[in-house]
Amino acid sequence: MNNIDEYFEHRQTVRQYSDKPIEPELLNHMIEAAANAPTTGGMQLYSVVVTTSPEMKRRLAPCHFNQPMVTDAAAVLTFCADFNRFEKWCVQSGAKPGFRNFESLVSAMLDATIVAQQFNTIAELNGLGCCYIGTTTYNAQQIAQVLELPQMVVPVVTLTVGYPSPEAKDAIKAERLPLSAIVHSEKYRDYTPADITAAYAEKERLEVNRQFVKDNGKQSLAQVFTDVRYPQSTSDTYSRLLRDFIAAQGYAFPE
Amino acid sequence: MNNIDEYFEHRQTVRQYSDKPIEPELLNHMIEAAANAPTTGGMQLYSVVVTTSPEMKRRLAPCHFNQPMVTDAAAVLTFCADFNRFEKWCVQSGAKPGFRNFESLVSAMLDATIVAQQFNTIAELNGLGCCYIGTTTYNAQQIAQVLELPQMVVPVVTLTVGYPSPEAKDAIKAERLPLSAIVHSEKYRDYTPADITAAYAEKERLEVNRQFVKDNGKQSLAQVFTDVRYPQSTSDTYSRLLRDFIAAQGYAFPE
Repeated sequence: MNNIDEYFEHRQTVRQYSDKPIEPELLNHMIEAAANAPTTGGMQLYSVVVTTSPEMKRRLAPCHFNQPMVTDAAAVLTFCADFNRFEKWCVQSGAKPGFRNFESLVSAMLDATIVAQQFNTIAELNGLGCCYIGTTTYNAQQIAQVLELPQMVVPVVTLTVGYPSPEAKDAIKAERLPLSAIVHSEKYRDYTPADITAAYAEKERLEVNRQFVKDNGKQSLAQVFTDVRYPQSTSDTYSRLLRDFIAAQGYAFPE
Repeated sequence: MNNIDEYFEHRQTVRQYSDKPIEPELLNHMIEAAANAPTTGGMQLYSVVVTTSPEMKRRLAPCHFNQPMVTDAAAVLTFCADFNRFEKWCVQSGAKPGFRNFESLVSAMLDATIVAQQFNTIAELNGLGCCYIGTTTYNAQQIAQVLELPQMVVPVVTLTVGYPSPEAKDAIKAERLPLSAIVHSEKYRDYTPADITAAYAEKERLEVNRQFVKDNGKQSLAQVFTDVRYPQSTSDTYSRLLRDFIAAQGYAFPE
């Protein structure tokens, strides 16, 4: 189990890919293996849309703010919450489906995310590199248009997948908070100011992050997150768009 | 990589546990390794509450409809979407956090789910058995009370973890839809009635599922899902409760 242990400790996101395509059999095999991941009530409330054609990658790219991974990676996998298939099965089987609500959407989102992460692990163990594209729920409606997603299908996470380019090997492993900052024993122990200082001290000390603060003309690393990367106005806007899109896809929000 | 391949193809959920406790060092080591999973913007928007005391497991049990795994497993891990820690860091660093919205909650839910699935894989590779408890978002408010979750912390998924009991070895591997039923090439190809029949044929044919239909006095397997396991009235009710709880925890839904 030693090299496996090592994998989990040293894995990292890969954003730079070689031109080498992924063998279709390997891609299918990995998705099939990932589908053995746990799923809500055995229902598999997800679909995976696999994009490998240059034309479709080009059309997806603007939905992800033209991040280069989308066109550079051999494959782009869009993992969608999907009650469409299950609902059709119910209707066809003389059953009355009742899944057009928020709780069902959450279950399907969890299913889609779990299978995506299982795929991510399997692909990395097979020598591929992956990157989650965090903008999937920002522009869910545009993605749905490009991929022709019907009602009850909502894109949740996107993974770009490909063989790493030589430069990718030089990437610095992303820093992580100390274990004590993320684990709570028996009950949640809320953070004191000293806990917060300790939790983020190493992150703030890293040269790459200090440079990040300087480059953005900010006083603290946290300000880069709040003012540059995730400003409230942006995330409020995307909240409304996402809510509207989810409702348009058929999942009613409770009144 | 062969035995790893085999693991991903044959893994299964474990609901029956031996009395053997999990070594605390192993548990910590596994959570630490899981925390190398990808996370939104490197923010680690989650917390893990680890429950091992019999008293706390007893208190959690009713939140999960007294499913026996909660008290039988050596450990119960509640993975929470958590912007509390990050928000406190922002305020302490002179940054103005703007995360009290739906899009931010979704990001934190994805983070919590991804790290949970990474933990699930690592634990299973270490010889432990795990079970996702799908009721976490149903009774999120009660869980929050028991675990004393503050504002901006929402429980998303729960894993029970323990060494499998001898009976667990006899469990039947959960059936999965054929790959063609979950994968779409380039664009979503909506399902014809024949596609649906083909997708669910094997599931419906299984003896265990036929018995399930009979035991519940239903005409089809789908009716067991719609009428018995996931009736609309229940999931509508839980949708409202979840929406109210999320808002009470500080994540505003868009008006």
